[in-house]
Amino acid sequence: MEEKLNQLKSRLAEVIDLFRVANLLSWDQQTCMPPGGAKERGEQLGTIRRLAHIKLTSDEIGKILDELKPMVAGLDPDSDAARLVKVTNREYEKRTKVPPKLVSELAELAAVAHQAWEQARAENNFPKFQPYLEKVVDLRRRYAACFEPYEHVYDPLLAEYEPGMKTAEVQQIFADLRPQQVALIKEITNRPQVDDSALHQHFDPQKQWDFGLEVITKFGYDWQRGRQDKAAHPFTSNFGIGDVRITTRILPDYVASALFSTMHEAGHGMYEQGIDPSLGRTLLGETFSHALHESQSRMWENLVGRSKPFWQHFYPRLQEYFPTQLGNVPLETFYKGINKVEPSLIRVEADEATYNLHIMLRLELEIALVSGELEVKDLPEAWNSRMHDYLGITPPDNASGVLQDVHWAHGYIGYFSTYALGNLISTQLWERINADIPDLEGQIRQGKFDQLLDWGRQKVHQHGCKFDAQELVKQITGSQIDAAPYMRYLTSKYSEIYGL
Amino acid sequence: MEEKLNQLKSRLAEVIDLFRVANLLSWDQQTCMPPGGAKERGEQLGTIRRLAHIKLTSDEIGKILDELKPMVAGLDPDSDAARLVKVTNREYEKRTKVPPKLVSELAELAAVAHQAWEQARAENNFPKFQPYLEKVVDLRRRYAACFEPYEHVYDPLLAEYEPGMKTAEVQQIFADLRPQQVALIKEITNRPQVDDSALHQHFDPQKQWDFGLEVITKFGYDWQRGRQDKAAHPFTSNFGIGDVRITTRILPDYVASALFSTMHEAGHGMYEQGIDPSLGRTLLGETFSHALHESQSRMWENLVGRSKPFWQHFYPRLQEYFPTQLGNVPLETFYKGINKVEPSLIRVEADEATYNLHIMLRLELEIALVSGELEVKDLPEAWNSRMHDYLGITPPDNASGVLQDVHWAHGYIGYFSTYALGNLISTQLWERINADIPDLEGQIRQGKFDQLLDWGRQKVHQHGCKFDAQELVKQITGSQIDAAPYMRYLTSKYSEIYGL
Repeated sequence: MEEKLNQLKSRLAEVIDLFRVANLLSWDQQTCMPPGGAKERGEQLGTIRRLAHIKLTSDEIGKILDELKPMVAGLDPDSDAARLVKVTNREYEKRTKVPPKLVSELAELAAVAHQAWEQARAENNFPKFQPYLEKVVDLRRRYAACFEPYEHVYDPLLAEYEPGMKTAEVQQIFADLRPQQVALIKEITNRPQVDDSALHQHFDPQKQWDFGLEVITKFGYDWQRGRQDKAAHPFTSNFGIGDVRITTRILPDYVASALFSTMHEAGHGMYEQGIDPSLGRTLLGETFSHALHESQSRMWENLVGRSKPFWQHFYPRLQEYFPTQLGNVPLETFYKGINKVEPSLIRVEADEATYNLHIMLRLELEIALVSGELEVKDLPEAWNSRMHDYLGITPPDNASGVLQDVHWAHGYIGYFSTYALGNLISTQLWERINADIPDLEGQIRQGKFDQLLDWGRQKVHQHGCKFDAQELVKQITGSQIDAAPYMRYLTSKYSEIYGL
Repeated sequence: MEEKLNQLKSRLAEVIDLFRVANLLSWDQQTCMPPGGAKERGEQLGTIRRLAHIKLTSDEIGKILDELKPMVAGLDPDSDAARLVKVTNREYEKRTKVPPKLVSELAELAAVAHQAWEQARAENNFPKFQPYLEKVVDLRRRYAACFEPYEHVYDPLLAEYEPGMKTAEVQQIFADLRPQQVALIKEITNRPQVDDSALHQHFDPQKQWDFGLEVITKFGYDWQRGRQDKAAHPFTSNFGIGDVRITTRILPDYVASALFSTMHEAGHGMYEQGIDPSLGRTLLGETFSHALHESQSRMWENLVGRSKPFWQHFYPRLQEYFPTQLGNVPLETFYKGINKVEPSLIRVEADEATYNLHIMLRLELEIALVSGELEVKDLPEAWNSRMHDYLGITPPDNASGVLQDVHWAHGYIGYFSTYALGNLISTQLWERINADIPDLEGQIRQGKFDQLLDWGRQKVHQHGCKFDAQELVKQITGSQIDAAPYMRYLTSKYSEIYGL
């Protein structure tokens, strides 16, 4: 069995290398690449993803898996060997259903669609992006068709980002969450609004950058195995467990944007830096569950970064960076300001109370597009009308509406709901962490994060993708993904801030 | 035939994509990658180069080439189709002789050797690099052995960087050049030395960077298809004809370093930006001749950038950037300063008169290492003694001696002589250019470079690697590579500066 496992691993090593190389091509495209490189970059990404696909779906891997399956049947099902065979087999079966040509068409389209989206957003010109998005939807439908029969046409797309999760499951969780969240927002908006004008001043971008670095260095983000760059849409990418990079975006007139995006991406980054190196160059070293990923970024961004103990430690330091802007602003005002709840246009700037509604809107639109109930040309109108229904506001233009996110340009249909699931998981884990580290609040108040990071390393990070989101959440908390802790957290937090 | 050619091209497109991807992995390694990424980056480069090798040496390509060879026999031998088959066949035959395992061993070694070299240079610790260099020499010997029988064990290594060139040919050119160059240096050192102290002051790095950008923007370096970053050892790399990037290194206390390295790399960059896009994604869009490449960088760096007409235009502008340092320094003093001849330790900082001696030293040492006449452990001593013999100086440490260049860490044995050949070619072409554009000097004096760049585009750049160095030089100048124009150029220039 050892020999067969090694045969599998040596083949997977090549596949993982190709995955990592595709990550670098894409990272570079978003941080460094001059515009003239777009066409060839698309071709290169197409070639690399096609080769990875061909290699991962090769008959040799299929044969080795067939030989290994009975061999690992007697092992502990949670052992690395058993999980490696299980996860590899799932990915193998998933990918053998998709023709390589479709994979490379998607990759090549993503490169040119990204450029078109950037232009369309800059010019507030949806029709410029429309033909690309139509192609994306078409290719994603053809992708889903490879998995017929399915319970729901959206299931195969969701499974790309959240293995083991079904559309119906997410719809159920959201159906449970939505009325509670809407009711809370209503309660909040009936209370006097907090004043966050102190956050909206000019803050030197370099100082914003420096303060962000100081914070995430204290978190434990490892600079020997990472770096930070600027990108239009912040993201984290890895080129190995030894090289996990983050990006941020700085707004000169709003201090909260770069700050929380930096903490958010550092959360993603520390997750991937924490994977057990022994899982490297196998599929177990991947992080297929986007909800688990997001639970880590949201934990550092919100449960740590928007908490009062955190700012009891860091606010005096931030005031040193910006004495003119914040020297006379009390901590309490700042704390309320960064936790202001207000229905707004841009998902990535949304507060914790309204965020999930942005996600529900996208999930519903994606399902409508893929199932053919909505045409791309009608998308801006559908977007705007739903924004009005859910959040009570209508985007003044498509740049701050339907064109705000990069995901669809990259072909990522099925992705968004994992953001909301990540929010829910983060608070489920947070309740457990506080039970395991009773002094956590005191530690955060002192700017100490080593026990917290270590908890994440042990319970979540090291496992890579050995366990699906539902499995791992159950393992750690004893319960499935559940909206109740998130609502408890929001209610408690905003009761204090808004005096509910 | 058209169909067969298209079959060939579609297979080559994949190979070229892999070449470009390897370039990006390597560029990132030298400009962005955190140290923790080294091991996995080496594995990734190994995988990508091995896949490129396997694909370029596939039986399918061999079969298509065998079918195409008789078909193109009737065509103009300089047509794209005939040249494509010829060049592809040469690369195919060259590479089928090398086992894929050896190719990936070299790539993986290069990644870790690069890190070891960086450390060894920083710590002035040759023994730290020695075991890696021993492995490099061993692997390069095994590489050469794949080509037995050969005229010279060094021929297969040279051919990697200069297709069609033989060791004996280079030795002959150098034998012709060396006594003339030594005599000239002797004559110069007998004259009073020029004063370049004005160049050795503190020059703000950002301003150095900005002035460099201003210059190469006027040259015609295309920023839509390029960018500049910092690197320990400046280089140019391309990820497609639409994305050709350069790097530079800035010394805060010496203004000439970044300035001329920026012009030099821009010369490389404009060469690759000028390749006919119709040759893209085929082997004809490559630039296999390093001597031709170097002729372009040297032309912009030296024949343009160190000329008096150039500084008649740009010196007032440089004085505006650095009024304190250069405001009172006359043009004549500055011009003589940047053309100061002085035997020195570092190749990349060497002047035009001594540069080629640095190359001859390396060529001789490489030949001795590969043929087994010299052991790696004895290399520092051999280096130092030859530095003394050729240039009359002995490096005070290995960091400024044998450890100064990155090439050997990357496995590039066979590369150096192309630098000297490039110098020779640049002046051969320059005599032709001045015949074709009689007003060139006047144009340069006005900061106009469009006709010059256009000449390069038409005569050199657009052809990619359709022609070998000797062929193209003959085609343009009517003569083989020849030391005479270079000696005429040096003699005329230094006669004026040193009053010979």
